[in-house]
Amino acid sequence: MKSVGVIVEYNPFHNGHLYHLKQSKRIAQAEVVVAVMSGNFLQRGEPAFVHKWSRTNMALKAGADVVIELPYMYAVQKAEFFAQGAVDLLSALQVDALCFGSESGDIHSFTHTYEWMKKHELTIQHTLKKEISLGVSYPEAMARAYKSLPDETNVLPLDKPNNILGYHYVKAALDKKHPIELHTIARSVADYHDEELPAQESIASATSIRKSIISGELASIQHYMPQSSYEELQHYLQSEGTFHTWENYYSLLRYRILTSSVEELRDIYECVEGLEYRLKKAASSALTFESFIEQLKTKRYTRTRLQRMLSHILLNVKKRDMDELLAPDSPPYLRILGMSQTGRTFLHQRKKKLTVPLLTKATGGASDNHPALVLDELAATVHQSVLSSPTPEYKRRIIIRD
Amino acid sequence: MKSVGVIVEYNPFHNGHLYHLKQSKRIAQAEVVVAVMSGNFLQRGEPAFVHKWSRTNMALKAGADVVIELPYMYAVQKAEFFAQGAVDLLSALQVDALCFGSESGDIHSFTHTYEWMKKHELTIQHTLKKEISLGVSYPEAMARAYKSLPDETNVLPLDKPNNILGYHYVKAALDKKHPIELHTIARSVADYHDEELPAQESIASATSIRKSIISGELASIQHYMPQSSYEELQHYLQSEGTFHTWENYYSLLRYRILTSSVEELRDIYECVEGLEYRLKKAASSALTFESFIEQLKTKRYTRTRLQRMLSHILLNVKKRDMDELLAPDSPPYLRILGMSQTGRTFLHQRKKKLTVPLLTKATGGASDNHPALVLDELAATVHQSVLSSPTPEYKRRIIIRD
Repeated sequence: MKSVGVIVEYNPFHNGHLYHLKQSKRIAQAEVVVAVMSGNFLQRGEPAFVHKWSRTNMALKAGADVVIELPYMYAVQKAEFFAQGAVDLLSALQVDALCFGSESGDIHSFTHTYEWMKKHELTIQHTLKKEISLGVSYPEAMARAYKSLPDETNVLPLDKPNNILGYHYVKAALDKKHPIELHTIARSVADYHDEELPAQESIASATSIRKSIISGELASIQHYMPQSSYEELQHYLQSEGTFHTWENYYSLLRYRILTSSVEELRDIYECVEGLEYRLKKAASSALTFESFIEQLKTKRYTRTRLQRMLSHILLNVKKRDMDELLAPDSPPYLRILGMSQTGRTFLHQRKKKLTVPLLTKATGGASDNHPALVLDELAATVHQSVLSSPTPEYKRRIIIRD
Repeated sequence: MKSVGVIVEYNPFHNGHLYHLKQSKRIAQAEVVVAVMSGNFLQRGEPAFVHKWSRTNMALKAGADVVIELPYMYAVQKAEFFAQGAVDLLSALQVDALCFGSESGDIHSFTHTYEWMKKHELTIQHTLKKEISLGVSYPEAMARAYKSLPDETNVLPLDKPNNILGYHYVKAALDKKHPIELHTIARSVADYHDEELPAQESIASATSIRKSIISGELASIQHYMPQSSYEELQHYLQSEGTFHTWENYYSLLRYRILTSSVEELRDIYECVEGLEYRLKKAASSALTFESFIEQLKTKRYTRTRLQRMLSHILLNVKKRDMDELLAPDSPPYLRILGMSQTGRTFLHQRKKKLTVPLLTKATGGASDNHPALVLDELAATVHQSVLSSPTPEYKRRIIIRD
């Protein structure tokens, strides 16, 4: 059974995702689609709009065959670590191909860029370091590094979010010589950062979809997602009573920052020296997450980077913990969140050949759980803690779709 | 101007407090009443039902002339440290007399007990240590220590809460040879732990008053407190929207326990070895504070002791921080929360002779604030954090009553 992997967040699942899923299967001529999906906290450092079990439902109903959780330690990371973790998981499951959406849409431009970057690696690193030390943001520093080099024709300018991610997928696969076919498809229409729903199209960005839902217009987004996803969102709102944004967690985050010493804040993963004082100052005056992050923002730190740091503060993830988690060269386990019947057959075939344990049960806080799993369970507990009747993670069962 | 000190919590102020206040003034023949009052967290390890500013209002309107905050480091402590801190504050202000309520009502029985205890100190300590190591609670161990000694006639059995506190006030004053007159008055009628409002009397316990208010019967308690206190409570509910019990803080406490490592919990003041695992277990399953503390309770640890530990967890007060705070032999400052015109004249007289700084402004989170003051400000911030529009502590001004 030929399989294709997709790396996703589905926050929430929409028509753009459906297009990507179908095209990936077609282009890779695959029978099985394996989705590696972020758990309850996402790459941009945000709590997932609906929890991972709900998003697994959406994925399965829309055609994914296997949903694997991208652990927090890889999910809430800059593109480089996010991509490496996800590609390593697909490789651990011996998935045959990877297909990602990109602004470029041309896989050769990615492999060419990879080779070119490898050739000029030292110079680029040097320029990057210099520019960043001058206070230039990462994307801007990258652009400057490019301009200083020869043969930049046909090299992808890594200034668009999905080209950046795509580049890192390709790099992750080629660096480790993973035997995985690489494909990309051009993302259609919606721009990742669009905040408005488009009037004429059936594809909108997840950002604009979340924004519309939060302003109380759940019905207005029906047009932009499969009916099954829409029903899942309706069901979520009815049963859980709320969707999840940073505002829901601000009282906890604020409390944590105000009751932590500056030394404790400094110990948190990605908390850069000096930021601990800004954090305390902003938390004492800001009463909403939006005003808090507005006070925190500087030219130097992007909102995304700050949000990732805030996720780590919320979950008390320390530098030394994360360093230990990321030290091994391969993922500690493959955690299945859900599968179709096709997915089940596929996993049954793969099972015998795996070198990484396949987890099909939710965790239960047992002391012998892998620390990465303990962190995922904690992320779920905190994510759920804003609901009036949360379901403990250990009571969750893998979702099987008939 | 002769002054008398009272050591209080006023949670909330009621007729029993009014009686104590008036009698103290009469018995000590004082013109000025100085109330040393716990801040936003109390000796039994509970958040104050209304914040300290509201309770200062009640105290001043009922006849107190000066209200001084008993800092968190002394307030949320077993009787011994609570009493020492409060008596040291009164002595630092050179208050002439102290009058406390007790079940006994006879000051000579307290001084006699103090002398007797001093004589038998080593034997008592030895028995106490032995019994406690066998898992016996502190009051029970104390009772056993008594029985093993001669001449126990006229010695107060320290098994009633206000006799225990009273004994420690007397001990605190005599141990340090503070030149302060000691008086006690018999507490009338209401038992400290009564949960029901009495039908025939106008004095009820603060516990029963809080209980009635929480069950939505604010009007039912009007009979048991001065009109001014009742109006203050009405105003609090209107302006702040809620009173404060542990349930209001359980989401923060639970979050803190679940996201702390066992090592971090072990570092907290009064967290006894082994309890960190019980804390994590109870927090993962309990969704209310009541069910949480029910799961936590053992024969060995009283609810009060556990609640004090939980306050320290909520505010992240570490063993080493508290040890440093308690190391000096005298209080670091006298913080005035409010005063009457008489109180103002009194403070003006005392001012010149003080060896301890008199703080008349609220703190502002300045980095040179005394750590004890920083802790009080944090206690206020966390206490207020459950309100929709909290007033930051640094905006508070000392209350002056005309």
